[in-house]
This record gives sequence, structure tokens and C-alpha cells, in this order.
Amino acid sequence: MKKILNKVENIINEMLDGMILSHPDLIKRVPNANVIIRKNLNQHKVALISGGGCGHEPAHGGFVGEGMLDAAVCGEVFSSPGPDQVLEGINSVGTDKGVLLIIKNYTGDVLNFEMAGEMTESIKCESVIVNDDIALENSTYTVGKRGIAGTIFVHKIAGAKAEQGASLQEVKATALKVIDHLYSIGMSLGACIVPASRTASFELGVNEVEMGLGIHGEPGTHRMELQTADDHTLYMMDKIFEVMNPKGGERIGLMINGMGATPLMELYIVARKAQQILKEKNISVIDTFVGNYMTSIEMPGFSISIVELDPETEPLLLAKANTIALKRF
Amino acid sequence: MKKILNKVENIINEMLDGMILSHPDLIKRVPNANVIIRKNLNQHKVALISGGGCGHEPAHGGFVGEGMLDAAVCGEVFSSPGPDQVLEGINSVGTDKGVLLIIKNYTGDVLNFEMAGEMTESIKCESVIVNDDIALENSTYTVGKRGIAGTIFVHKIAGAKAEQGASLQEVKATALKVIDHLYSIGMSLGACIVPASRTASFELGVNEVEMGLGIHGEPGTHRMELQTADDHTLYMMDKIFEVMNPKGGERIGLMINGMGATPLMELYIVARKAQQILKEKNISVIDTFVGNYMTSIEMPGFSISIVELDPETEPLLLAKANTIALKRF
Repeated sequence: MKKILNKVENIINEMLDGMILSHPDLIKRVPNANVIIRKNLNQHKVALISGGGCGHEPAHGGFVGEGMLDAAVCGEVFSSPGPDQVLEGINSVGTDKGVLLIIKNYTGDVLNFEMAGEMTESIKCESVIVNDDIALENSTYTVGKRGIAGTIFVHKIAGAKAEQGASLQEVKATALKVIDHLYSIGMSLGACIVPASRTASFELGVNEVEMGLGIHGEPGTHRMELQTADDHTLYMMDKIFEVMNPKGGERIGLMINGMGATPLMELYIVARKAQQILKEKNISVIDTFVGNYMTSIEMPGFSISIVELDPETEPLLLAKANTIALKRF
Repeated sequence: MKKILNKVENIINEMLDGMILSHPDLIKRVPNANVIIRKNLNQHKVALISGGGCGHEPAHGGFVGEGMLDAAVCGEVFSSPGPDQVLEGINSVGTDKGVLLIIKNYTGDVLNFEMAGEMTESIKCESVIVNDDIALENSTYTVGKRGIAGTIFVHKIAGAKAEQGASLQEVKATALKVIDHLYSIGMSLGACIVPASRTASFELGVNEVEMGLGIHGEPGTHRMELQTADDHTLYMMDKIFEVMNPKGGERIGLMINGMGATPLMELYIVARKAQQILKEKNISVIDTFVGNYMTSIEMPGFSISIVELDPETEPLLLAKANTIALKRF
């Protein structure tokens, strides 16, 4: 499997340097740490920190900026950053109003982020754990449901809340509410290749897909024959509805997230069917995001995330933010 | 090769519907045509129209919006739209100030867009041809150099000029100036798969890359062994400098464009080296774009584009635009 890299051991360092050299107006890097922070820190707000293993770009460094994250702490590929790195992040962006850690539910991330939170002395630190993946109750690296692409809705909505000057407890309460109304499910046509190993973590048949898999190639609920885009979308939306239990009249944010190698063309074909299904259910889509937000290196596949909004969270989803992830002219 | 599709013959129709259903605030579709147009047309400006075959998403429909294109005319995958479709675009967005057609230099596109321009009676129509690919003088589908990812800088800068209320001749002159200072080169690790054929248009060895290839998988200048990201970047930047002939002190826009399946991680590793090279040359990078802007379905590979700016074009590159391509929160 060919990759455009230099030395494998330098991947994260070089990627992070590439990010800060390319976007010096928005982000900088904590010296000697794999931590991307917002260029112009706002000392009068709660600081939001997320992160985890790399390989999910633009998550999480791409979501650092006004109205979203203050810091992203980056581990090696698919590997949790150590508590020392998280502590670097906390010490670099923490304010008098405190720090909220937004942790995807993986055992290593939860352990290391929470340990760092306990190591801080002068900075108030709280955490929330995102577990939006409705496919499985427990998984390879997880006790409980996994955190996947829906996490970005937590960054956005809690980020806008923090930007308004809300207290740590208020921002945490908003983040928890989002997590409580967040539903995602993914599927894949094949594995990604971790640079260090250069091998696929699983193999699928020539016409086979994995349903409900995680963002590190963890197994999903089952394998099945490739079906039409419409049929896969319908199945995945039905799985979300089983948990979400919509009555009609809901207002939501929708994300059709590419895993890395899926053409935007295919994501929009999925988006079309998802929009049709939601309209039939009398569910209003307030904003839609279609593209690569939380990838698994170059995995072919996609996930669907829905966040159910309320009068507090809807304007927070729509509020201005300014991050490098998705460079808009 | 697995793809997330329904019927192959419906791909373009379903993709365009997915786009307008997902972004109804920004774009709409001309009924019964494969033409995406800006939702809120401005009748007091020159209208900009681009397009070509699909498979390059987010180009071109993704760049329709305030400050960029007024219409994108979409052909089948890697196939030029017919003059009737282009004419639909012209008639849908043309204003009293006229229409500028921005055409990538492929024989079919040039023929069909210019023919449509000549078919209009009541609307003033001019065209410019983008030929930013410095790899080859002539190519499979092209007399002269190909138009590739640098085209997006033409959309952006000419789009901002039009938004300011400039005349058709002024917008055309600005577009021509951008084209005259635009340099791109691509490379690939493998082919993409056109949905209708389900076969790769070429095969590379397990450790081989194609240098200078086009956005439809057209052959480049040569094949070579895969090298480090730094070495490939250095080679490609040198090729650009041979044509650009920088003296130092230039101010540029830089794009590291993913071809579809290349992880953002790899693009940022390329971006790092490109930034270092430019700094050594005393060339100032005013703005950098890293991501999938002009893809070749799910091709693994990337291109580098440089636009040299002047006091007129620099603020136009930085001016506000609002398109769906790159959804920013």
C-alpha cells in the first residue's frame, strides 16, 4: 500500500507542522508537544479540549478555532495521547473559567484525558464522554458505545456555548444534552492501512461490506452483501430511528461523513436518500454537513450522524465558527 | 471495485439532487438540467459559469455561491456537458452585464462551452480557458496544457472581481491575468474507477507512481519509483519554478489538492515541505488551501497549484465567498 510519507515515526510531527505552517492565522502548536491550539485564545471563556489518536483528520486539529475547540491533543495514529500531552493542552489553553474535556468513548482516551484532568491543580477541569455510535453496546476498544463522527456536533454546539461566555457547568450541561440526543452509525467497503504496519486490519469479500464498524476498523454488527446506496441508507437510518424514536416535528443537524476515500459524489447520493427519508418522517433538517469530517485514514465508507436540536442548541449549531478544517474561501 | 451507488445511469441526477436537498439555503437546480445555480442571484454583476464532466467533486457545483460561480454545468462522469446544457446555464444566470465562461482546457469542454456562448442571442458572453497544468504541452484529451486544480483560483479571484460590480471585460481581464500566473502539477499512486466501466484506466506497479498525470487519469510525463513525500514535493515544486521563474519576493496562493483518496495527513506532510521550500525561496504564501478541491473520483494522489498574486488579485483571493463545497461551521 503506497503512501505519501517520509519516515513513519515522523508522521504526526510533520503533519502538525504542515497544519501550522499552512494556517498560521488560525492555529499554532505547543512547543515540543503534539498539541494544536487556537492562535487567539479568549481568556474570558471556558476552554474546550478534545483529541485522541490521529488518522481521523480533519478531526481533531481541524476543529480548533473560534467557536469550537481551543486545543486538540494528538496521539499517534489510532493511539491515545498520554496524560502528559493532555496536561500540556490543559495548561496551554486553560482559563479561570475552566476547561471542558470532550472525550470520545475509547478506554485509552477516557483514562488518559481524565487522568490529566485530575493532575491539574490550578485549573478547574470537567469532562464529557461522547458515545454516539448506536451500532454496538460494547466494542473492541470500548466499554459502552463508541464515540464517532457525531462528536463534531458536540465540539460545535458546546464550542458556541463557551464562546457566549457560559460557565463551565453550563457548557458541560449543554454538551451532555447534545450527547444525549446524538445518534451515529457507520459502514465500510474495506479497511484502511495504518502507516506503521502497512497492512489492512481486516479483509472483506469483493462484494461485501461491514455494517456498524468503528473509526479504527473495529468490527461492526455484521457483514453483508453490498446493496444499493438507497438500501444501505434506509437500513442505517432505521437503526438510528430505533434508538432516537422520532415522533415527527423534530429539528435536527445531519452529517453524512466520509471515512476518507469515499468520493463526495457517493456521499451526496447517500445524502439525497437521507433527506428524502427525513422529509417523509416530517423531521426538519436545519443544517447538513456532507464530506470528510471524522475519517479513518483512507477507509472507503461513510457514517450518518443525527443530532436532535432544541431551542437552545439550534442557534448554537448555526453560530459562526472559524476553524481550519474545512477551508472555505 | 465497490461503490456506494444506485443505478449507474442515475449517478449525476442523484448527486445533484443530494446537493440541493442538503444545501437549499445556497443553491438550487435548473429544472430538468444538470445545472447547479446560486440561490440568490445578483442581477447587477457579471455571471460566472464553469463546469465540465463530473467526478471532480467538489468541483464544480461546490463552488457555486456568493463571490464565486453563479452556475456549474455538469456532464456525465469525465465527460463534457453538451452545449444545450451550457446554454441552460447561461440562460438561467445571465445578466445584463454578461456572462463569463471559465473553461478547463479539454477539447470537448472548449467546443461545447464556446458553442453555447455563440448560441446566445440576448446575453453578452465571453470565455477564458484555464491551462494551469505545467506537466505537459499536449495530452490525451487536450491541445495545449490541461486545466486542473488551479482553476479554482480563477473561480475565486474572478468571482470576487465580478461581485464588486466590474464589467465583463474587466472580469475577463482579471481571469486571464490569473491564468497567466497559475501553475499546477499532479502525481498519482494509482487509478480511479469510473462507475460505468468499473475498471481502472491504468495500472501502476506496487511501488510505482505516475508523475504529471491529469485529473481523468491521463498519462503524465513518466512513471517512477515511489519516493518520500519530501522528494516528490521538491521535484514538483522545481517543475513549477522552471515555468514560474520566481525571483524571490513573490506573493502567492498555494493549494495542496487531494485527488480523492489521499488522507489529509499525507496532504499536510506535503504542505509542510512546500511551505519550507517557498520560505527558502523568499516567496510569501498569502493563503493556503489543503484538501480535496478538484478530485478524480477516488484516485490516490495530489496536485500542487500556485497562483502568483498582485495588488489587484491578492485581496480578491482573500475576499469573502459563500459556497457549499467546503462546509465550514
